[in-house]
Amino acid sequence: MRYLFLLLLLFVTQVVSAADPLPSWNDGPAKDAIINFVKCATNDGCPLYVPPQDRIAVFDNDGTLWSEQPAYFQLLFALDRVKALADQHPEWKTEQPFKAILENDLKAAAASGKDGLLKIMAVTHSGMTTDEFEETVRDWIKTARHPEKYLPYTELVYQPMLEVLKFLRANGFKTYIVSGGGVDFLRVWAEDVYGIPPEQVIGSSIKVKLEERDGKPVLLRLAEIDFIDDKEGKPVGIHRFIGRAPVIAFGNSDGDLQMLQWTDRKPNTFKALVHHTDAKREYAYDRNSHIGQLNKALDEGTEKGWTVIDMRKDWNRIYPTP
Amino acid sequence: MRYLFLLLLLFVTQVVSAADPLPSWNDGPAKDAIINFVKCATNDGCPLYVPPQDRIAVFDNDGTLWSEQPAYFQLLFALDRVKALADQHPEWKTEQPFKAILENDLKAAAASGKDGLLKIMAVTHSGMTTDEFEETVRDWIKTARHPEKYLPYTELVYQPMLEVLKFLRANGFKTYIVSGGGVDFLRVWAEDVYGIPPEQVIGSSIKVKLEERDGKPVLLRLAEIDFIDDKEGKPVGIHRFIGRAPVIAFGNSDGDLQMLQWTDRKPNTFKALVHHTDAKREYAYDRNSHIGQLNKALDEGTEKGWTVIDMRKDWNRIYPTP
Repeated sequence: MRYLFLLLLLFVTQVVSAADPLPSWNDGPAKDAIINFVKCATNDGCPLYVPPQDRIAVFDNDGTLWSEQPAYFQLLFALDRVKALADQHPEWKTEQPFKAILENDLKAAAASGKDGLLKIMAVTHSGMTTDEFEETVRDWIKTARHPEKYLPYTELVYQPMLEVLKFLRANGFKTYIVSGGGVDFLRVWAEDVYGIPPEQVIGSSIKVKLEERDGKPVLLRLAEIDFIDDKEGKPVGIHRFIGRAPVIAFGNSDGDLQMLQWTDRKPNTFKALVHHTDAKREYAYDRNSHIGQLNKALDEGTEKGWTVIDMRKDWNRIYPTP
Repeated sequence: MRYLFLLLLLFVTQVVSAADPLPSWNDGPAKDAIINFVKCATNDGCPLYVPPQDRIAVFDNDGTLWSEQPAYFQLLFALDRVKALADQHPEWKTEQPFKAILENDLKAAAASGKDGLLKIMAVTHSGMTTDEFEETVRDWIKTARHPEKYLPYTELVYQPMLEVLKFLRANGFKTYIVSGGGVDFLRVWAEDVYGIPPEQVIGSSIKVKLEERDGKPVLLRLAEIDFIDDKEGKPVGIHRFIGRAPVIAFGNSDGDLQMLQWTDRKPNTFKALVHHTDAKREYAYDRNSHIGQLNKALDEGTEKGWTVIDMRKDWNRIYPTP
């Protein structure tokens, strides 16, 4: 009898999950739009049918797949690295922006502006081999904690978006990250966390140089920007890495506007914006935020009928861990 | 009775093809090496086992997947384009290297050196949108004929290598092109001809710029080199686009040496060189050729025990059409 009950429970669970691929989404226009688009894209009797090889879906990362407040997580990684490397750099005690970071005075660090940021990125992201950098990111992502949520960063990914990724892949879509963040930072953990393999991660990059160490080739990371995969860089990155137009695009900020417009070039495509409206469970910000500003894209998206996801109303759960 | 015979024939054909994934390869060490590596890589009891997500195989294109004599086919495309565009450029009648090309004097054209080549590439490969360029390549590849073999270029691909690509994919490998040729040139036809989708083609590129035309975004091709995917560029391209190390690499020239060395960094990987030894059926060239020179890589490959494919001995067929 007990076994029968368990069996029944298993059956019910499976039916429910088969019936609802997006359980963390509340019923409403956003959820309907996603499900209806995918249903039609995979049904060759439907006017929106998309042949399997063209099923390309692109996702911004910061603010679309994981949180981005109070600062981009990759910047928090860089700050942690400055602290970890401080012993080897006694000169940082008097040199900005390092002095400010070591004193936890983030306002003073921010005051050093773009030049300061480039200095931080140079010492934390270049001067090592690609293997060494990967190892450093791998260690950090395992141990670091978010300053306000006190959780590992990989638990600050959006459960509803994990469900979208999985739902799309189950329907033959190739899911890509197209991020302004660093490609070599993302690739270390994107496969474990999102199920997106390294070769489907597009991001900003610095130049690398082939060298020989102990008779073996290595790639040395240089303090020189190679490609900025943001704003008008996103269509360029999509063209360069994928070589065909996406049919689905998710973003959350004005930095994603050109990617959404690029997707919108083709008829019968799906464009969505994650609108951060949930101050209680996550963060609430849009037009006036200096991280993930959503202003022009919100107007254009609303006008053109793109799906605007209201995080507070549309998502019954934010993160995987309740 | 006749049906029975046909059925039997079908059965025999299927058994034969199941038994031999590489029918255009003669029995010998090259064929054995490929088959044995793949058998072991896909058997988790084998010391050379490769987990599915790491099954990345990279292939040079010119001279490895299709012919490259008497000149790289993309250069022949460029020369054809100069002729097609000549009416719009009366000044070319007196300006080198265009004058020489229009007079079919390839020696004089070659005498204009690297500067001449850059001029040819600029007028034939830039100044149009990515869509327009794709269309041009698509038209050309359908109609153009090789100057010596009188066949469409897409029929000058190597049947034995098509079998290797298919065999690897059937065993869970992702097959990539890593070519010194232009990525946007290759992507137009690589899926039809090799079964390799655009997103698995890595190649040289020029810069593109996002612009608006008739209210829609387009990417304009600029006369500025973005990336040269040759020699030390190949490991850089593999890192940038794939983000993990290949376990199988096929090349044919010194331009592929760094890619093979990069693959060789990892233990239990497979490296192969296509050696052009067949003057009768294809071309014979190696150490002294100025196209596809195979000199240093031949020495290093022989010394390190990489598989050197002797085209004349190892392949019982060169092209798909007998």
